[in-house]
Amino acid sequence: MLNFDFQSPTRILFGKDEESRVGELLKPHAKKVLVHYGGGSVKRSGLLDRVCASLIQSQIAYIELGGVVPNPRLSLVREGIELCRDENVDYILALGGGSVIDSAKSIAMGVFFEGDVWEIFEAYNPIQKALPIATVLTIPAAGSETSAITVLSNEDKQLKLSFGSPHLHPRLSIINPELFFSLPKNQIANGIADMMSHVFERYFTNTVHTDLTDGLCESLLKTVMTNARLVIDDPYDYEAWCEIGFSAMLAHNGLLGMGRQQDWACHGMEHELSALYDVAHGAGLAVLTPAWMRYVYHENIPMFMQFAVNVMGVDSGFRHPNALIEQAIGRLQEFYKRMGLPLTLRELDINDSQLELMAEKATRASRSKRKPLGGLKPLDTQDVLAIYRLAL
Amino acid sequence: MLNFDFQSPTRILFGKDEESRVGELLKPHAKKVLVHYGGGSVKRSGLLDRVCASLIQSQIAYIELGGVVPNPRLSLVREGIELCRDENVDYILALGGGSVIDSAKSIAMGVFFEGDVWEIFEAYNPIQKALPIATVLTIPAAGSETSAITVLSNEDKQLKLSFGSPHLHPRLSIINPELFFSLPKNQIANGIADMMSHVFERYFTNTVHTDLTDGLCESLLKTVMTNARLVIDDPYDYEAWCEIGFSAMLAHNGLLGMGRQQDWACHGMEHELSALYDVAHGAGLAVLTPAWMRYVYHENIPMFMQFAVNVMGVDSGFRHPNALIEQAIGRLQEFYKRMGLPLTLRELDINDSQLELMAEKATRASRSKRKPLGGLKPLDTQDVLAIYRLAL
Repeated sequence: MLNFDFQSPTRILFGKDEESRVGELLKPHAKKVLVHYGGGSVKRSGLLDRVCASLIQSQIAYIELGGVVPNPRLSLVREGIELCRDENVDYILALGGGSVIDSAKSIAMGVFFEGDVWEIFEAYNPIQKALPIATVLTIPAAGSETSAITVLSNEDKQLKLSFGSPHLHPRLSIINPELFFSLPKNQIANGIADMMSHVFERYFTNTVHTDLTDGLCESLLKTVMTNARLVIDDPYDYEAWCEIGFSAMLAHNGLLGMGRQQDWACHGMEHELSALYDVAHGAGLAVLTPAWMRYVYHENIPMFMQFAVNVMGVDSGFRHPNALIEQAIGRLQEFYKRMGLPLTLRELDINDSQLELMAEKATRASRSKRKPLGGLKPLDTQDVLAIYRLAL
Repeated sequence: MLNFDFQSPTRILFGKDEESRVGELLKPHAKKVLVHYGGGSVKRSGLLDRVCASLIQSQIAYIELGGVVPNPRLSLVREGIELCRDENVDYILALGGGSVIDSAKSIAMGVFFEGDVWEIFEAYNPIQKALPIATVLTIPAAGSETSAITVLSNEDKQLKLSFGSPHLHPRLSIINPELFFSLPKNQIANGIADMMSHVFERYFTNTVHTDLTDGLCESLLKTVMTNARLVIDDPYDYEAWCEIGFSAMLAHNGLLGMGRQQDWACHGMEHELSALYDVAHGAGLAVLTPAWMRYVYHENIPMFMQFAVNVMGVDSGFRHPNALIEQAIGRLQEFYKRMGLPLTLRELDINDSQLELMAEKATRASRSKRKPLGGLKPLDTQDVLAIYRLAL
């Protein structure tokens, strides 16, 4: 096991009706709140009204900024920063999924930054301060409700970059699984693929003697796959949504990767897809992950055998490991298909015309952390290109 | 799944040599530190010298207070409170296991309390403030390094009570598994029984649809039992100690009990044992837990079948559930015996003379939380007495 440094200070309120307490909970900390959200769904569902009523009841002033889109954009973040400065906002409340929360985090740190907020992503230097953030989660997927990470798309530069800082941990996240009942099936499926990838990126490792986190990762993956089948068939299954919502949070609060070398190649490759083609992050991951597995598993056969047996339920038998691992990857693809997720880039209307460009960007040296890509097998540009081609 | 409210803000530094960073880490927060510890082992091992050297290097003033004993005592806590007030201590650094950390927590809250600190335990009213605490863990067992709970023994009244508050979460806990190499075998075994009990108390529940936390509990229990066998044979097995140290922390930071009705009957019954006979907490738990299981399992056969198959590795077969569960409890006792732990009260030199008194105290109504005892099957005085007798 490797040395590690872990902290996940976010308070989690979980369960039915918890969002109605938001005013009471923010009262000691907030004078003026920016309520940040995406499109019309928080209005249609009544969530925005309920949350604002709670703020009003606790006599907390607020302003609203909607309009966050999937793969949240720099332009709106800049607008949010100006708004927070002009209105003396001292707390941001994000109502939404990972995109809204990431947009809120980018605004929160941009408010105290003298230059343009995109410079923080480009330079990746530590920040000193950010506005406090609370979230009411509407899509279990990105794990941004506990993570210290934000991802932002620069639409002019066709770049999607991530940035992390302890100052970006939300102080409070409210997870009411009833809010997931109205999600469209494709968003459910994308979220499932995303949270599973957050575990895969930590699970697949060359670090040995990681019994505890191996077991935690395996438990989480099995819980997600079991309950994803339930919610995709019956989106009103509250208990199954509880399992999914809890899992999504834990998948990305950092715990499952402690003491382990982590990978993150699939996320790196997928970011190039969604920067260039604006595909859903989860859909991109569902396409790339099996291709990545097939390309790298020879590097660590025991790790992938463990995955096959402990996660995918393949009978260990006495066969050749390759057959066993191939069966596990096949089962994973069957699962993605059952969720309605794409299995190939072509299903995402992506052909081979930009693969070289994406492979080059994914392994670009401008941010030293991203070259080479991945921990289990460090991937150079040609490796990434080969994986994109496998995924066609 | 039940609604829940979870927060575990403690920063964990884990691995070799991490304790040498304590001065640097406390520097921004501490002017004068109380270094709190137990007997001579932190001196003999050189830990106390290393930690004090780190404080000196960071120019942090400190005073020392040693002398904490297992089942930490009110008298020393009172002394610590006076010392902190007289010396204007603003941070407590606990070097030790659960007893030292619990003693530190009691001091930390007593400093700001106007009455005698024991009143906090008796009244169980919320506290408003406590000194910040950091810990360097020397025994993985109690989980006090992340918990918000302290347990204190009043030697005059022969009472052992617990108290919890969010103000008691340590800010920082340093876990270097190398510090566990010198533990005597009986302390190792007691610690293993304690951390397993922290999971059992959360695992055995009547709450249904708790897939994720079921799996996390099962992974943790299996990890502990696998690696306990390794460290009891070879106390210098660093990797096995890593698994144990990580597990002990996670067993009691709250996560594994979220969304579940919890039990805590065994802890309640054991507290009476160690209040009256000063036995080691883990040893008492090893004796009482199987007796408790035999007494209550009929209340929730599916839960105990799951334990038998998923944790103890009993072949599910098609036999009568009672046989299957009995086999699992037998295996658990074999494991405790392998650790060198007692299986009966008589092995602890406890006869039946005080059982009625202990059963009465365990279910006493003076603190409403403790009557009846336990969640899976609420136990009245006669139930507790029957379990004590089963354990003779």
